Amino acid sequence: MAINSKCPRHNVHFEPDNIIIQVDTGANLMETAIAAGVHINASCGGAGVCGTCNVLVKSGQVESTRTDKVSQIDYNNGIRQACQTRVFSDLNIEIPVGSRLEKAVLSREIEELSTQKPVALVSGWSFKPPVEKVCLDLPIPTIDDNVSDLSRLLRVIKQRCNLENISVNADILSGLARILRKYNWQLTATILLETNSNYRVINIEPGDTRKSHYSLAFDIGTTAVRGQLLDLNRGMVISHCVDYNRQISYGEDVISRIAWSQKTGGLKRLQEAVTATLNDLIKRLINSAGVEFQSISYMVVAANTVMTQLLTGLDPKYLRLSPYVPTISSVPLLKAKSIGINTEEHVHLYIVPSVASYVGGDIVAGILGAGVHQSDETILYIDIGTNGEIVIGNSEIMLAASCSAGPTFEGGGIKHGMIATSGAIEGFEINSLDFEPVVSTIDNAKAKGICGSGLINVAAKLLESGIITQNGKINTDFSTKRIRKGEDGYEYVLCKKAKTQIGKDIVITEIDLDNLMRSKAAMYAGYQTLAKSMGINLTNIDRVIIAGTFGNNIDIKNAITIGLLPDLPRERFVFIGNGSLLGSRLISFSSDLLFDGETIARKMTNIELSENVEFMSNYMAALFLPHTNMKEFPSVSIKKGK
Amino acid sequence: MAINSKCPRHNVHFEPDNIIIQVDTGANLMETAIAAGVHINASCGGAGVCGTCNVLVKSGQVESTRTDKVSQIDYNNGIRQACQTRVFSDLNIEIPVGSRLEKAVLSREIEELSTQKPVALVSGWSFKPPVEKVCLDLPIPTIDDNVSDLSRLLRVIKQRCNLENISVNADILSGLARILRKYNWQLTATILLETNSNYRVINIEPGDTRKSHYSLAFDIGTTAVRGQLLDLNRGMVISHCVDYNRQISYGEDVISRIAWSQKTGGLKRLQEAVTATLNDLIKRLINSAGVEFQSISYMVVAANTVMTQLLTGLDPKYLRLSPYVPTISSVPLLKAKSIGINTEEHVHLYIVPSVASYVGGDIVAGILGAGVHQSDETILYIDIGTNGEIVIGNSEIMLAASCSAGPTFEGGGIKHGMIATSGAIEGFEINSLDFEPVVSTIDNAKAKGICGSGLINVAAKLLESGIITQNGKINTDFSTKRIRKGEDGYEYVLCKKAKTQIGKDIVITEIDLDNLMRSKAAMYAGYQTLAKSMGINLTNIDRVIIAGTFGNNIDIKNAITIGLLPDLPRERFVFIGNGSLLGSRLISFSSDLLFDGETIARKMTNIELSENVEFMSNYMAALFLPHTNMKEFPSVSIKKGK
Repeated sequence: MAINSKCPRHNVHFEPDNIIIQVDTGANLMETAIAAGVHINASCGGAGVCGTCNVLVKSGQVESTRTDKVSQIDYNNGIRQACQTRVFSDLNIEIPVGSRLEKAVLSREIEELSTQKPVALVSGWSFKPPVEKVCLDLPIPTIDDNVSDLSRLLRVIKQRCNLENISVNADILSGLARILRKYNWQLTATILLETNSNYRVINIEPGDTRKSHYSLAFDIGTTAVRGQLLDLNRGMVISHCVDYNRQISYGEDVISRIAWSQKTGGLKRLQEAVTATLNDLIKRLINSAGVEFQSISYMVVAANTVMTQLLTGLDPKYLRLSPYVPTISSVPLLKAKSIGINTEEHVHLYIVPSVASYVGGDIVAGILGAGVHQSDETILYIDIGTNGEIVIGNSEIMLAASCSAGPTFEGGGIKHGMIATSGAIEGFEINSLDFEPVVSTIDNAKAKGICGSGLINVAAKLLESGIITQNGKINTDFSTKRIRKGEDGYEYVLCKKAKTQIGKDIVITEIDLDNLMRSKAAMYAGYQTLAKSMGINLTNIDRVIIAGTFGNNIDIKNAITIGLLPDLPRERFVFIGNGSLLGSRLISFSSDLLFDGETIARKMTNIELSENVEFMSNYMAALFLPHTNMKEFPSVSIKKGK
Repeated sequence: MAINSKCPRHNVHFEPDNIIIQVDTGANLMETAIAAGVHINASCGGAGVCGTCNVLVKSGQVESTRTDKVSQIDYNNGIRQACQTRVFSDLNIEIPVGSRLEKAVLSREIEELSTQKPVALVSGWSFKPPVEKVCLDLPIPTIDDNVSDLSRLLRVIKQRCNLENISVNADILSGLARILRKYNWQLTATILLETNSNYRVINIEPGDTRKSHYSLAFDIGTTAVRGQLLDLNRGMVISHCVDYNRQISYGEDVISRIAWSQKTGGLKRLQEAVTATLNDLIKRLINSAGVEFQSISYMVVAANTVMTQLLTGLDPKYLRLSPYVPTISSVPLLKAKSIGINTEEHVHLYIVPSVASYVGGDIVAGILGAGVHQSDETILYIDIGTNGEIVIGNSEIMLAASCSAGPTFEGGGIKHGMIATSGAIEGFEINSLDFEPVVSTIDNAKAKGICGSGLINVAAKLLESGIITQNGKINTDFSTKRIRKGEDGYEYVLCKKAKTQIGKDIVITEIDLDNLMRSKAAMYAGYQTLAKSMGINLTNIDRVIIAGTFGNNIDIKNAITIGLLPDLPRERFVFIGNGSLLGSRLISFSSDLLFDGETIARKMTNIELSENVEFMSNYMAALFLPHTNMKEFPSVSIKKGK
């Protein structure tokens, strides 16, 4: 053990994880937690401005700066912002519920993943994974046929598989002589399709191992990472799991991740955080399916551009500086192990290419899974998260944009906003006579807050009933106790204190409505701007594909009512779930689709909305419920207030 | 420091190197020397049968088995075979001259290398190295042109170089964003030709670095490694050096190396020994030329099949077991660093492909340099070493064989044989009246022994003068004191004791002549067997190309006289020096030749002489000076003895 007598070290004990770590005096408490593998929410990545990393110092001496994110009362009770706190003695730290990750949200998603039918709108592909196992019996060498082991192997592969261009990974050479002779010249070769006509032998195993042949598909989101283990013989998902992206300890959004990456060693830490997440998920995927580690043959990942660069260890600095240039859009096929992913040497990682800084491989994968690039019809593809990603296109042209919808639909910026987990208000109806609400919550638990899809339903019903006006204000003309003035202006009480878990009324405020309006306006202005660039109107859209976990849960009619979705017939809308994971899975299943990602990325034009005048004017016009121009929403009828 | 109290450790001091190493009690002395980096000759690789590893134990306690390789007198004086000796106390060991490497032989070769004009018979190629540096000025990104850094780079390279298929090494990505921006989007890209039409960006540097662009060419021989540093801008050799292959500590010939490789950790040690040799040579090459380490862009190696497999860490076991199957004949393009060669990450190593176990990349490189594969004329290519390698062919067909010529031409099996260094008898004439010899030695030093080329000259002159008979016996009919009976039968005294460095007469014996006859017979029978397989006579050979350091020094006429070379007009013979290094250099200079190696290896058919009946009968017929069938040697006239 290294002992440095000049610098005293202290034991920091974290509860409820019950983990102790020893650090130097003066260490930052947030970084101490990260080093200990203890997660503390930190939306802003340690800048001190978000107030999500509050912890309770139960005992011990710290130095901390109080910002306005911690009230004087809380401060007096021992609450500190971890990122603003330094360690000066042994400590007992409790991480309160509010600063911990809510794991329950993921269990809802895992349930959806497991029941979700494989929806793939893309067609014209056959089951033909880009990595294949072939069992071969080589002719035994004689003095008249004593070509090298490798030449013999390649000769037979070329004959059997009718291949012209085949190369080999140098790694296979060291075991070649032994493996060929182990089972009397019978072996299984794993062959990877590298480019359209180039194949590569990436692994050889003695005997016949064709039965064990699996692939991994991952969607790496800023918040969560979703993975599936795929059986490459049967073309089936055999296990799946979801977990938070461990980078979340370094900030909730991509901006704070980029900020963290600029610190000394920051980029490396972020890369290690995401590979640790993947490694943990891989372990869970193969354990739950009872599959052996060495039978994984391939891996596909789709992610937004920042996640892709962090995964591959590339500095994301320029992604968010105008003119928004990524280091890379098409990542060359990599050995997964080379970037710290715990797989066998031969497992290659295909990362779905991205289009631009704001339009990543997750969108390209979704477009691929949805078959937009093959479609004669014009499709609007929507993936709503912190950024709303939008594509309008068909087989001829595809335009993409990313609009800053903000975290509204994930509960951010909403007084009682929360993520879609137990106790979140989701269903909402209103009695048109007495304006009393009927709420339903996820898991039918006592109400805790409002999730994104709930917010849409609440706003739509309040709008239809006239309780809120088209400019997002509470209509105080109505006589009901549900409407009242609160600290953030007027509000409507969704759920009374007695019926909640949180010991206070759950309300929706004018500020909430304002945030919602801005988010949905950004999305709608995005559709309009792209449609205009295509030379069409939104009414010309033949199909709307909604991707993403959040999208899966929204009520189309209500979303149209508030102007989040364009006013088109219900039958034109299709949900495809997680498009990014869908695309990754399909690429694992069919080499027909392997190069479609490239084609899509190349065909797709990114429209930068942030500096687009047209978009700004569309946005202003959409800051109304559903829209200032009601001709855009002919099906929406709104009860005018008195 | 690890201290194991159970096992006493001893200091072993080696002189004259003055190196001390600490080992466990009972350690083998030969392995102790290897671990200390001290070389002791060991022809047999430690089997105890060659007697070349004698050392003097000056003080200390050892356990050793006396074999018949150490006389009782020497044993009493403290001489031990290192490979048969174990350490049981602190030791002082002296390595006598006879057990040390004779470095002088290399200085003669380095002199030849430096004066040798670049002879290349191959034609139809232009100076166009397979790795190119291109300086690029990229357009600065704007919001309307914000493709990824990599796309921008590849776009410009494709335009500038008119390339279709170009990929990138994943290693370049991490520095890409920074390097592009360092000198305002000016950079130098190093582009490698991978296959006939596939290019790969392997390195990028900020600014214009085209001036620094070098390659390394190596011939890895079983005994010595020869290297050249090449300027890829000017197409010039700018430095060269030679050193023993450090594997020589593990046995002198490939058979003992293979035996060593089968010991635990043996393969790894042998690989490390050759890469250490290369690393040392690389350091010397770049230091003497004043070139920077990072300006090396490429590396080409040619070697025999065993050396190739040991370099790449492949078990050579099956190379010498019938049916003689190498693991690999064409090694995929490797990163030099991946096998332990000390270069920058991007330096790729091209290993010239081999044909079969006994016909390696060194021969393919020589054939390439000699242009045999392009020739309308039929060429006999000869490289004489421990194995005599022979190729007969033209642009249509090429046959290759390896005959065990034995170490005769390197001084092995000859009573006073020695390598071609200072004091070796090389020139030889005889006074036809009194049979007194006129000898000349290398460096005009006092005589020490006879080198290979000297042996040919001596035998030819003795044969012509009738002192030896056509069946290789000393003709005792002559009346001269030079002829006498010695311990190995009759002998002829070349140099009297007083005129030598060794304090005794230097003689040539009937046993020497017998060994010479067998070696030259193996060569000649090889030519005949290949010619017959081609359907031609040796007289149809249009040109004879002699490669190799030894070949460079032989007297054609004398070699014909003893039947080592076919009896063809002198003008048909050409010397090309080290063919293996020549081919490696040319491949570095021209991508036109890069794939010729593959073509040659594919077109060339190996004839296994060891199991060939025709060869055996030719061999028997050639056990005569110059040959039993004198019609084969019309130009040779021999004075018949009385």
